[in-house]
Amino acid sequence: MGRTAFIISDRTGITAEMLGHSLMTQFPLQFEQVTLPFVDTPDKARDAVRLVNEATLRDGAQAIVFATIVDRTIGEIIATANAVSIDFFRSFIGQLEDTLGLEASAEVGAVHPATDSHQYETRIEAINYSLANDDGARVRDYDKADIILVGVSRSGKTPTCLYLAMQFGLKAANYPFTEDNFSDTDQLTLPKELRPHRNKLFGLTIEAERLHAIRNERRANSRYSSRNTCYQEVRDLEALFVRERIPHISTTQRSIEELATKIIQESGVQRHLA
Amino acid sequence: MGRTAFIISDRTGITAEMLGHSLMTQFPLQFEQVTLPFVDTPDKARDAVRLVNEATLRDGAQAIVFATIVDRTIGEIIATANAVSIDFFRSFIGQLEDTLGLEASAEVGAVHPATDSHQYETRIEAINYSLANDDGARVRDYDKADIILVGVSRSGKTPTCLYLAMQFGLKAANYPFTEDNFSDTDQLTLPKELRPHRNKLFGLTIEAERLHAIRNERRANSRYSSRNTCYQEVRDLEALFVRERIPHISTTQRSIEELATKIIQESGVQRHLA
Repeated sequence: MGRTAFIISDRTGITAEMLGHSLMTQFPLQFEQVTLPFVDTPDKARDAVRLVNEATLRDGAQAIVFATIVDRTIGEIIATANAVSIDFFRSFIGQLEDTLGLEASAEVGAVHPATDSHQYETRIEAINYSLANDDGARVRDYDKADIILVGVSRSGKTPTCLYLAMQFGLKAANYPFTEDNFSDTDQLTLPKELRPHRNKLFGLTIEAERLHAIRNERRANSRYSSRNTCYQEVRDLEALFVRERIPHISTTQRSIEELATKIIQESGVQRHLA
Repeated sequence: MGRTAFIISDRTGITAEMLGHSLMTQFPLQFEQVTLPFVDTPDKARDAVRLVNEATLRDGAQAIVFATIVDRTIGEIIATANAVSIDFFRSFIGQLEDTLGLEASAEVGAVHPATDSHQYETRIEAINYSLANDDGARVRDYDKADIILVGVSRSGKTPTCLYLAMQFGLKAANYPFTEDNFSDTDQLTLPKELRPHRNKLFGLTIEAERLHAIRNERRANSRYSSRNTCYQEVRDLEALFVRERIPHISTTQRSIEELATKIIQESGVQRHLA
């Protein structure tokens, strides 16, 4: 028996979707998913209800609605759908009103305007910084970095930096350890560009076998992607992290969100977006 | 009277935080915010409860806990805190169990493993594509793009592309209209690199005054940032969007999330991450 899960929001629906996914993955079922963002007029709400009711009829089982709806009127219309309705927002607003002794403003996207514009700029600035300081392309701005991720090529530095910038407003640079850093005879040392910024360094490591698979997709049968190179680079860099007491984390089996959150937690870096 | 808002999760807490913010901004209050991610053992849960209880005592008003906790035991410990507790996850799991006639697995981060690894790769590939095809740096891979954002310099193309890639797994290229495209005498035309990909184009526009302010921060008192240039570029490009029937949206006053979601909705592009 297939069921349809609707994500309905008078804003983007991104949080409803993330939470809806978390809930759905707790059950061994496949849901057909329909996302309806910006349902912000009574007409659009009635259209959404119609779609939900059609799905319930078609599936022979109530659709599930995961919603975040700020506007009261829209919320009431959506609630009339023939579905199991879960509104992550409206479910709690009454409880908060009682606790705080205040009425909610019920404005879609209500925010403290000054903060918002400031936060927007913080975020864009962090993204621009992280792009400009990606992959060791520029090291002279490291003094402006909030954090500098270090790791071998393809260990996940770039996406993690971008997420740190986008979600938390952090200026996240990254520096790759490449062929030039590794030597067959000498012990790996901390490059001189990184030495003045030791307290900002955070290491990313990865299982050598996984690294080998990733690099092989990129440049098959090369020295760069060989099992031998991958094992050696990972081993030498992990040893350096330990010797230099650089905090580090494995990217294997971790999502970008998990990595970013763990890095903030373990480095103690101050987020710029609350 | 100050209050403390805790974000507590046995995972990253990112969704709890986003929803908690939405709820808090409905009230004209300032909250002291404390984020506690990865509270995934009974010991950590008891530490969290202690922090919450201390805040309630210190503030003379119950702390608010916004939580997403999958593990039942952890959830029960957190529920003992002297606080107004809102768990966006546990509040609904019982309702879903009843509806679906199934028991939730209660596993932290439970996911369908095959899908997950596939989704991870889709996401990384999209991010890499969007980085490589940023700012018109490379146009030969436009046939692989899911969408190509076009707009004047500093209209918000890059962050929007990165978000489309990160959140929705879309290969989002972007092409800037620069000085070279605009002419004082000739009407603006669609560059030949873009013509074969018309159906993938989506325009970003921006209020000229806002553009002027942004560019001025970057390169003050230049031709590039002058009010005159900004007004002319925006006007000419908007006229081109209309002439060529390219769907477009204003980035002024919109968050990156809103832009990305609207672009998906209005272009009809298929997301690669559900």
